Amino acid sequence: MATVLDGKVLGRKTLDALAGPIAAVREKRGSPPALAVILVGSNPASEVYVRNKTRRAEEIGVDLTVHRFPDAVTTGELLVMIGKLNDNALVDGILVQTPLPAHIEVDAVMHAIDPNKDADGFHPWNLGMLAAGGSPIVAPCTPKGCMELIRHAGVRIDGANAVVVGRSTIVGRPMGLMLLNANATVTMCHSHTSHLPELSRGADILVVAIGRPHFIREDWVKEGACVIDVGMNRLSDGSLVGDVDPACASRAGVMTPVPGGVGPMTVAMLLANTVALAAMHAGVEEV
Amino acid sequence: MATVLDGKVLGRKTLDALAGPIAAVREKRGSPPALAVILVGSNPASEVYVRNKTRRAEEIGVDLTVHRFPDAVTTGELLVMIGKLNDNALVDGILVQTPLPAHIEVDAVMHAIDPNKDADGFHPWNLGMLAAGGSPIVAPCTPKGCMELIRHAGVRIDGANAVVVGRSTIVGRPMGLMLLNANATVTMCHSHTSHLPELSRGADILVVAIGRPHFIREDWVKEGACVIDVGMNRLSDGSLVGDVDPACASRAGVMTPVPGGVGPMTVAMLLANTVALAAMHAGVEEV
Repeated sequence: MATVLDGKVLGRKTLDALAGPIAAVREKRGSPPALAVILVGSNPASEVYVRNKTRRAEEIGVDLTVHRFPDAVTTGELLVMIGKLNDNALVDGILVQTPLPAHIEVDAVMHAIDPNKDADGFHPWNLGMLAAGGSPIVAPCTPKGCMELIRHAGVRIDGANAVVVGRSTIVGRPMGLMLLNANATVTMCHSHTSHLPELSRGADILVVAIGRPHFIREDWVKEGACVIDVGMNRLSDGSLVGDVDPACASRAGVMTPVPGGVGPMTVAMLLANTVALAAMHAGVEEV
Repeated sequence: MATVLDGKVLGRKTLDALAGPIAAVREKRGSPPALAVILVGSNPASEVYVRNKTRRAEEIGVDLTVHRFPDAVTTGELLVMIGKLNDNALVDGILVQTPLPAHIEVDAVMHAIDPNKDADGFHPWNLGMLAAGGSPIVAPCTPKGCMELIRHAGVRIDGANAVVVGRSTIVGRPMGLMLLNANATVTMCHSHTSHLPELSRGADILVVAIGRPHFIREDWVKEGACVIDVGMNRLSDGSLVGDVDPACASRAGVMTPVPGGVGPMTVAMLLANTVALAAMHAGVEEV
């Protein structure tokens, strides 16, 4: 039976470890690390995410401010807001909560964020640094959290066969780049992939982020594999399930639960990114 | 026996197809597409590359200017030059010929190039757009040339198993991203990969860019595969050989020769990038 990779415990540890750098930033410049969140409309899921981020930020002493806009906001109005936040020396990180209304030019908004304030790590500049094999100051939070979980489990990444199922910009693609940068042999799978069960069975490390409930079946998992389930699917009965059938735990060596696996790590990484940016802005060394 | 994928012929066709857009740019603004090449020192290989680019540019009517600097040039002096070229409205593309002397801060130089003049497609912004699944105006020339060769051969990329051997920033990494964006299942292999022969044998499309003479052996190639050899290795007897053993042609369906495969496509793609940038700068539609 797989060892459970507990994201709540590791997320808490990650947040606790930020106390030192946060104190150092405070001492150096007299203000805490600060994250500005832009929230458009009243999507219930977005409200939950933002509330969750706010709670964690408060706990550790990161100043999180939510800037709310109505659904009818224009791209131009958001760009003005981002421009102000870019210019505000007291703001370390900027996050635009997605999804945005259909009439907003998402790319224009995202690309307007100063790459040095890109708390989510989604800016092409930061993604490009990752794609070039470098280490951007910030990297996308969910895959960064997955990497921490894999490392924490003591799983060898160097030389491992890693299979990533799903190629979204916010999870699958940066996940593949991070695993490649850590010397794994990486296979990117997606909806056009044939022989997925076979590829999946060859994975020492399997990361699944496609948003399909219990898509990965027990016999698709290699004995002893590390299985990271990024899925968060709400079923009609209200329950929350991952992309991986829990039965896979009978074969996996380590496996994340849903909920309580990747989710808590994502929030922790967002705040870790914010603190890293604040340390850079404040000129604090050795974070 | 594999069909030979002739890069000289396809490169020539690609260059010929630029005549229309070049004329349109000339007509619109009264000056041709212009590429500035920064060349430091007197590396013999670099001299050959630059001469080759210059010849092709002249043939098709792209204005290529070489800015030469001595080995002792400083990073700061190169940054001043790049700043001038960025500001010069008559310059469409900027290319810094590598390798640069060890004392130069390569990243600082490369990142200083305006992403809208990044003829080589190496800037993190453009690489990031590629990593995000988008279509940057310019993309790295060698993998872009490989994609053209694969497409020209009529090989189905969508759903194919593509294996990329080598993970350099200028070839392997962007190659993997382009194949992924074209819906291939992509496996990135490199020096830490175990079971390379097995992975290679599973490839419908095999792209090799590691710089090791005849590294890929006949029995590593799947029957009917498309094999793209990016290697250019100079042997002690002066001959030029690829990373793929020519014997692989007995199993491959299509295969590039070395020389005369990927090489001519790279130069053609550099000029295609330059012309695309010029069209954008001149406001020429429908290129």
